Formats: sequence, structure tokens, C-alpha cells
Amino acid sequence: MSTATASRASDWFAAHRATLDGARDTIRTRSFWSAYPEGFKSYGEAAPAEGKAAFEARLGKPFVIDQPGTGDHVATERSPFGLELGVSYPVSTPELLVGAAQAALESWGSASLEARAGVLLEALARINAASVEMAHATMHTTGQPFMMAFQAGGPHSQDRALEAIAYAYEEMARVPAQVTWEKPQGKGEPQRIDKRFAIVPRGIALSIGCSTFPNWNGYPGMFASLITGNVVIVKPHAQAILPLAISIEILRAVLFEADFDPNAVQLAVDTPDRLLAKELALRPEVTIVDYTGGNAFGDWLEKNAGALVYTEKAGVNAAVIDSTADFKGMTRNLAMSVSLYSGQMCTTPQNIFVPRGGIETDEGHKSFDEVVAGLGAALDGLLGVPERAVELLGAIATDATLERVDAENAKPGVVRPSVALAHPAFPGARIRTPLVATLDTGDVDRYDREMFGPIVYVIAVDSTEQGLDLATSEAQRKGAITAILHATDPAVIALGEKKAAEGYVSLGINLTGSLLVNQSAAFSDYHVSGGNPAGNASLTDAAFVANRFRIVETRRPATA
Amino acid sequence: MSTATASRASDWFAAHRATLDGARDTIRTRSFWSAYPEGFKSYGEAAPAEGKAAFEARLGKPFVIDQPGTGDHVATERSPFGLELGVSYPVSTPELLVGAAQAALESWGSASLEARAGVLLEALARINAASVEMAHATMHTTGQPFMMAFQAGGPHSQDRALEAIAYAYEEMARVPAQVTWEKPQGKGEPQRIDKRFAIVPRGIALSIGCSTFPNWNGYPGMFASLITGNVVIVKPHAQAILPLAISIEILRAVLFEADFDPNAVQLAVDTPDRLLAKELALRPEVTIVDYTGGNAFGDWLEKNAGALVYTEKAGVNAAVIDSTADFKGMTRNLAMSVSLYSGQMCTTPQNIFVPRGGIETDEGHKSFDEVVAGLGAALDGLLGVPERAVELLGAIATDATLERVDAENAKPGVVRPSVALAHPAFPGARIRTPLVATLDTGDVDRYDREMFGPIVYVIAVDSTEQGLDLATSEAQRKGAITAILHATDPAVIALGEKKAAEGYVSLGINLTGSLLVNQSAAFSDYHVSGGNPAGNASLTDAAFVANRFRIVETRRPATA
Repeated sequence: MSTATASRASDWFAAHRATLDGARDTIRTRSFWSAYPEGFKSYGEAAPAEGKAAFEARLGKPFVIDQPGTGDHVATERSPFGLELGVSYPVSTPELLVGAAQAALESWGSASLEARAGVLLEALARINAASVEMAHATMHTTGQPFMMAFQAGGPHSQDRALEAIAYAYEEMARVPAQVTWEKPQGKGEPQRIDKRFAIVPRGIALSIGCSTFPNWNGYPGMFASLITGNVVIVKPHAQAILPLAISIEILRAVLFEADFDPNAVQLAVDTPDRLLAKELALRPEVTIVDYTGGNAFGDWLEKNAGALVYTEKAGVNAAVIDSTADFKGMTRNLAMSVSLYSGQMCTTPQNIFVPRGGIETDEGHKSFDEVVAGLGAALDGLLGVPERAVELLGAIATDATLERVDAENAKPGVVRPSVALAHPAFPGARIRTPLVATLDTGDVDRYDREMFGPIVYVIAVDSTEQGLDLATSEAQRKGAITAILHATDPAVIALGEKKAAEGYVSLGINLTGSLLVNQSAAFSDYHVSGGNPAGNASLTDAAFVANRFRIVETRRPATA
Repeated sequence: MSTATASRASDWFAAHRATLDGARDTIRTRSFWSAYPEGFKSYGEAAPAEGKAAFEARLGKPFVIDQPGTGDHVATERSPFGLELGVSYPVSTPELLVGAAQAALESWGSASLEARAGVLLEALARINAASVEMAHATMHTTGQPFMMAFQAGGPHSQDRALEAIAYAYEEMARVPAQVTWEKPQGKGEPQRIDKRFAIVPRGIALSIGCSTFPNWNGYPGMFASLITGNVVIVKPHAQAILPLAISIEILRAVLFEADFDPNAVQLAVDTPDRLLAKELALRPEVTIVDYTGGNAFGDWLEKNAGALVYTEKAGVNAAVIDSTADFKGMTRNLAMSVSLYSGQMCTTPQNIFVPRGGIETDEGHKSFDEVVAGLGAALDGLLGVPERAVELLGAIATDATLERVDAENAKPGVVRPSVALAHPAFPGARIRTPLVATLDTGDVDRYDREMFGPIVYVIAVDSTEQGLDLATSEAQRKGAITAILHATDPAVIALGEKKAAEGYVSLGINLTGSLLVNQSAAFSDYHVSGGNPAGNASLTDAAFVANRFRIVETRRPATA
């Protein structure tokens, strides 16, 4: 790195220092803070048109990334809204990618923490400026409704990246670079030793993306690995490449401007003939794997990859309803939670346990059926106008989810089938309303597993305690990320908190307003506990970052 | 826990707060500090006799631990100094141990951080007071010479335990217990959410001990797991139970006094019929495993245990001699390093790479043979008087090491055979001097593997660079914990530092005084990098502690 470019990274660090400091301060309190505005209007009047144009300019052509490759391109994405994408991505091989990554490690791994932070914060600023383009890219790969795609694929992902940088920065900054160690030796001269502590990255990190939240789930591992000096190979889900490809394009441009080898961040895409995730994960040079996706492959990675593996898999999220002081607020909040992005969030509740004898509410006693009806009424209210409903539901991301919903519609107990809605702007959009089925505790083969997508079970239980026990047992055996409890009795709430700790799930209590249990805010909410089968890591805690680098010490007699 | 006993833990926390704060301060600078004096005289005039008497009172009888067991006792230890021990330990089963541990988790896992810290710091203070007894127990199980056994089994182990507590305390203290999160909502009322963040332990931790440094290597994982709320089952090496059994006895007494279930810490001993380590490690209830020992079982654990696994295994430590400004100091320091505890330290150098053309020194050019002769002369100086030599060498811990040394004596290239020395106080002691053999780079089946014990190879290399490359390659393939470089040219030193980072080994440069590369000081030196096959964890960094607990969040609308 020349002096001129070293000073570029250093200028960027100075320019973005306050952003980093804001993040570092906030993670100590976990109060509300955001570096990248989630309000669409904050991006200026020109942004909507410019962002849309930038997205449209990508369509129907090869996405150019100047990284080692075979020369071939492959297109695998299909918009859940039916838009023809036609973006093809450069094909590479594990050999080429690993070779280029190793070469890039030399300079990136030995750069100063400030230089790396400068580059990454500058990249995040440019990614932020591209948020509207990213919204379209996210929408048309994941099926998220536009405004959600803007927030989740844009500023919320960027905040989550910054959070990971801040945590890793904290851990590295706590390691002193040098100390003169003086040990008294009785009456003699002290031992005086010059000790130096070098932060050494692990090597090559692999980030395996998911189909629903490619940026939001991918950035934390990517940026945590990069700030700690590792180089990253990003292998997106074949259906959701574009948001990550745009991110990689920006990262590589910034690396290049700072005279780092851009191959510190590379894109790896699957072709029909060669799926890269397993092959890359088994390469001995790959020392870190971040993964978001299904349990089968996540479990395989945890067991078989020689690397450090950080997973977010899936689980069965539950709600337990004991009683409420706001029946309308509760049902509206639940309806929102199960409708948002058609239940395609790893945080969406699936199993709602309700005592078969009914519950006490501010509207008096409600029977089990009345609770189900209340949820139905709330769904009607939310989704009654299709043009508005599609902005909440988004579209169904994968064929598998579509088939799952169709199959479930034909099963017993369905009180509210999932129906298709038309999207006013996208005739080919595949949109489905949430399915609600009522079950009993014996129907374990129906509810005791993840049914990803817009499928909700209301399950009759003997008691609140049984509901809590079933929810906790599912979390421990199958994994769970969130849970909901509605209860007015402090003793029941205390029991719910105890059970949530036993199941290692994040618990929302009496959520009746606009906050949904699905939502997880950077700098404040820990996403995934890492303590049950839904994932072995948490966004973001110290454990997520602290092992991505090692400390190598040198000792020599101190002179002078 | 009653109020009276809660206040006992809290009183202890107050009493030992300054000790904890001293450790927390020091780990930020990693300067010299120690909580537990390493000077024998600091323990008072009565300590030597009392400690010896306490040790002798243990001999020839069952060691009583009131934990669930079969009622049987088993004795498996034999003193490398030939003393008849005859201490038998209570036998238990994985089922009984795990059941009792789970029951103990309830109160220990939900105790406050201050209560747990109070209990553990009080236990360390009492363990410190038992340091002379521990010295005898350590000496007669591991074969360490007395003064080393006192320091390494006593205050140095206690410092290392405190260091682990301090790191874990830091990580837990950084997680706020509660925050009221206020997110602005345009012109409307902000979202106001009460968020609580509970530290939840993982569950049952298993600590698998080694034969040479049972306390020093065992305490960090044990205390890190305990302070984070986990309960611990300690499975010592069958030859080195007593130091850990005494530690467990003290921990259990303190737990009992604070009204915690003493089964938060239990002892698991092997019987000839049932080796417990593998069985316990595979239990689903065991969520953390700390291991020190050989590579075969360590590798197996890393691959097969479902738990988090922290290992310190073995490696091949190297020295590379390029040149020196203090030939006598260098050879004396090397002779000390290879003699201390007869090379039975995971930090002892084994392979000394010396250019076949010789080296430049303050005494002029020295040929390869003169370097070897210099090392021999330094060994003569150190070990010439057997009564003094035994206080440096200690005794050979295991039959396997004894057989390895005898076999090596018969091989070609031995310039200084290992010989038996008599111990003035212990006629049955098995004491061996270091063996020195000269080899060439082609003798890979001799030197390219760990030869644990008093075996040193001086290997002729074409150049310093070749020596550095061989040392680095060994570190990367076989693991290494330490390396030594002697060089006067800053460019060679810089190259050595680069190679040490590539091999993830702790490098000692131009050590010619009393500091040995073998030594690793708590609060300052990182022991094992965790970046090569010698181990996947480091004593102590944030990564060693941060994943031993999880954070479980609850969210509810803020009232008022």
C-alpha cells in the first residue's frame, strides 16, 4: 500500500469515525440508535427514480466483476413478482477463488485496524447511498414488499454490518499492541521484557447466503470477518444474488481505490453443474464459515466443516396466549406478525398455543374459537384491500414454500385457507395470504416442525403451562428464535421468562402495539441466541467476533 | 439461597473486589501483575510444615467427596518420585454426575454475577492458602520439582484462574441488564420498549485434565465456565488427580457455605473398567468441554463432541539460531529451557535449527558443532551437580515418556544421551537428563513430530530461512506453541516475526537472560494461539470466555 492510498484509508477512517464511535457507544447500552436512516425520504427527491434506473440498468445483462473466473456467466434468479431479471453472474471455481483470496490476504490481513475500518465504513456509506437500487434488487430476488426490501436490504442491513464492525473493533482495540513487562526479581534487576501482540486474521472466510434476507443475514459475518483481517468469499443463494453482488461490487471498488487487492471480497455463484457451498466449506484454506439457511445443511456444516462455523438456521417459533388486557391490540399485532412478508422470516411465529377453555381479556372471557375468530378478524382488517395487502405480504420466494402452502390448504383443520392475491403492478407475482389451521396437542406431525411460509397453527392446550412447556420443548429440540407471551398475571410472565431462558429464545411479552416480535433492531436486539438448534451464533455478541482473529505474541528483552 | 447466605457471597465479593479489579485493569495493559504471591516465603514460617503435614495426611486413605457415587473408591496415581501415595477417589458414573450437575445448575446458573464471583474468589483465596499442600500434591503426581510444583500448581494456576474470571466478568459486565429503547415514530409517540438481557449459562461443562499441569491447565476452563453460570464436572488424568481433587474439595466447601448445591463442581475419576472422558463428552447435556492433552483425543473431541470444545494439545516447538550477541547467555537460556521439568512442558523447544555453516556470535564464528558443544557445556554447567539438577529436572511423569527416552538413546546422532540421576531424598524417583541428538533436514521421521520429554534435536539447515520455513511448516501442520529466534540482524528478526504470525506461534527473540520461552505469565502472556493444530483456544482471550454463556432477551412495552 503506497503512502497516498494508506492516507486515503486513513482519511476515510477520520471521515467515518463518528459513525463508528456512535456504534461503539450504543452497543454498551443497547439503546435506540441508527447510523443509516430507515426513512425513505431521507435519501432525497432524486433517489427513487435514480435508484430504480440503476436497478433497471442491471437487468438483462452480465454483472461484471473483475475477479478470476472461467469466463462463463450464469443466471439463476427469478423474481417472485414475475419481473424478468436476466442478470447473469461470472462463474468461478473454488480453486481460482481460494487462490485469489490467499493472494489478497497478504495486504488486507496485515493492514492496520484503522485502514480496514476506513475502507469498510466508506464501503458502507456507498452501499447506503445505493439503498433504493438495493431495495429493488432485494424485492425482486427475495419477494419482500418494496418498503421492507428498502429497509431490510438497505439501512437495517447496513446498521447490522456496522454493529458487527463495532463489536470486532472493540475486541481488537482491547488487545494492547505492546507492553514493557517488568517483573520484580527480589533485590536484583527486574526482568524487563518487550512484549508485542499482533492481531492475526484466520484466513479465508466463506459467507453462505440465504434466499430471504441476503444482505441482512450476510453482512454481519462478512463485515466481522473483513474488519478482523480475513478475506471473504460470498456464496449467495442461487435465487438471491443481486443484492450481494451489488454489495461486493462496491466493496471491491473501495478496496481498489485504497490500493488493496479487490479479491479480498469475491463472489461465488452456483451453476447447475457445480454447487459451491459444500466444496468451499471443506477446503482447508477456508477457516471461517457463516451460514444462514435450512437446518439440514447448517447441521452438516457444524459437524463437517473444519472451519469455525457460525449458523443461523430455522426453528419453530411459538406464541402462548394466557390472557390479555388488549384483545384487539393483541390480535392485530399477531396478524401483522404472521402476515409480514408472508411468514417468510425466521422470526415469524408459527404455533399459537391457546388454552382450550379460552382466555380472559379486556373484552371478557373469550373461548378458544373466539380467539381464533379474533385473529381472523384482524387478518381481514389487515389484508382486506389487496392493493394494500401486497405491500405487507410481499411475494413467495421459493417454489418449495408455494407447494407447502398449497398442500397445507388441503389438510384438516384449516379455518382460513391461504388464497392467492393479484398484485396491481406485477401480474406474475405469486402472493398468498396466511393460512390458519386449528390443531390439538396430539397433532404433533403437523405443528412440531418448521412450516416455513404463511402457515399458522392455533393449537388448543390444556393450560398455559402446557403451552409454555410445548413451546420450550420445541425450542430445545427443533430450535426457535422468538416467542410471544400474552399474559396479565406477573407470575405467568415470570414463568414465561424462565421458560424462554431454558429454551434460549427471545421473548416478546404483551406486544400489542406497532413493535412486532419478528423485528430485530441492530445495536439493541440480539438476533438468535445461539443456544438452541435454530443457530449456534448471535447477531451480534462478543462470541460472534472474538474468534475471527488470533493474537500472536512476541517477547524480547527490553532495551534501554 | 437464603438472604443470610446471599449476603455471604456478597460479602466475599466485597472482600475480594480489589483482586478482581486488579485483574480487570491488568488484562487491558497486560503488564506485570499477580494476585497470588509466587514467593514461597510469602506464605509464612508455618506454611512449609503445615502444608507438608496436610499433604501427608491425605496419603493412604480415601479422599472424601460427598457427591453422588457408586460407593467404590479407586486409586490410580503413582508418584514419579517413588513415594507411595495410596489415595483413592470416589467412583461415580456419567448418569449420576450429569443428574447431580443438572440439579445444581438451577441455583448456580441463576445466581447473580456478583454472587458467583464472590464464591469463586473466596475459593481461590482458600486454594491459595493451601499452596504448599498443593505443591506436594502437584510434585508427587506430575513429577515437577518442588519449587516449580509450588508455583505452577499454586499461585500461577490461581492467577490463571483469576484471569479467566476477569475476562468472563468483563464480557458479562458489558451486556446491559436492561434498557428502555425509544424509537422515534415521526410525529407520533415513540415506540418505548423495555428490553431485558439475561445472561444464561450453557449448562454442564466438562474439564478433562492432563498429567503434567493439572491445575494450571485445568483452572482457566473450570473457572471460566463457573463464573458464567455453568456447572463443572472435572475428569482429571488418572495420574494427576490429587491437585484437582483438593481444588474441588475447597470449591465445594465454599459453595456449601453460600448455600449453593456443591454438585456445581464434581470429580469424575476413571476406573480400569470405565474411562469417562469420551462417554461424558458425548452426553447431550454436556455443552462445554475443556481439554488439555494429546492430539489424538483432542482431535477426536473437536470433531465428535457436540459441545463447544476448547483444546490445548501438543505441537513441535522450534528454535532457529541465526546469530547472537551473547553466545553464553543464549546457550544457558536454551539449556534451561530444555532442562526445566525434563522437557515435559508443551512450551519446551524440541527442534533447534542451526545453519550447517555455523553462526556469527560475540565470540566470533561458531561452527555447527561448536554450537552443539556450547549447548552441551551449558547443560553440563546446569546439571553437573545431581542434587541441584533434580530441582530443575523433576521426575518423568509417565511410563511412555521414559520408554521414548530410552528408545531414542539407542538411535544414531545422539551426542548427549539421556542418563538417569539419583534423587537425594527419593530413591525411587525416575530422573533423566536431556538427550541431545544432531540430525539433518532429511531426518524428518525423527524430528517432524512431537517427542514429548527430555529429547532435543539440533538440526543442520542450509540457511536461517530454511530453518524458519521448517519451523513454520511444522507449526502449521503439527502445531506449535512457542518458538525461539536468535538473530542480530533486524531484517532476520522481522522475517521471524512474520513467520511466527504465519505459524500462529508465540515467539521469543534473543532470550539470553532468566526469562524462558517455556514460561507463560497470567494476565500478560497468551498461552497457545488457537491458530494451529496445537490447540483451538488461547489462555486467555475473549474468545475463550465469550461463548460460555448466551444472552436471552425479553421485550415488552415500557410502562410509565
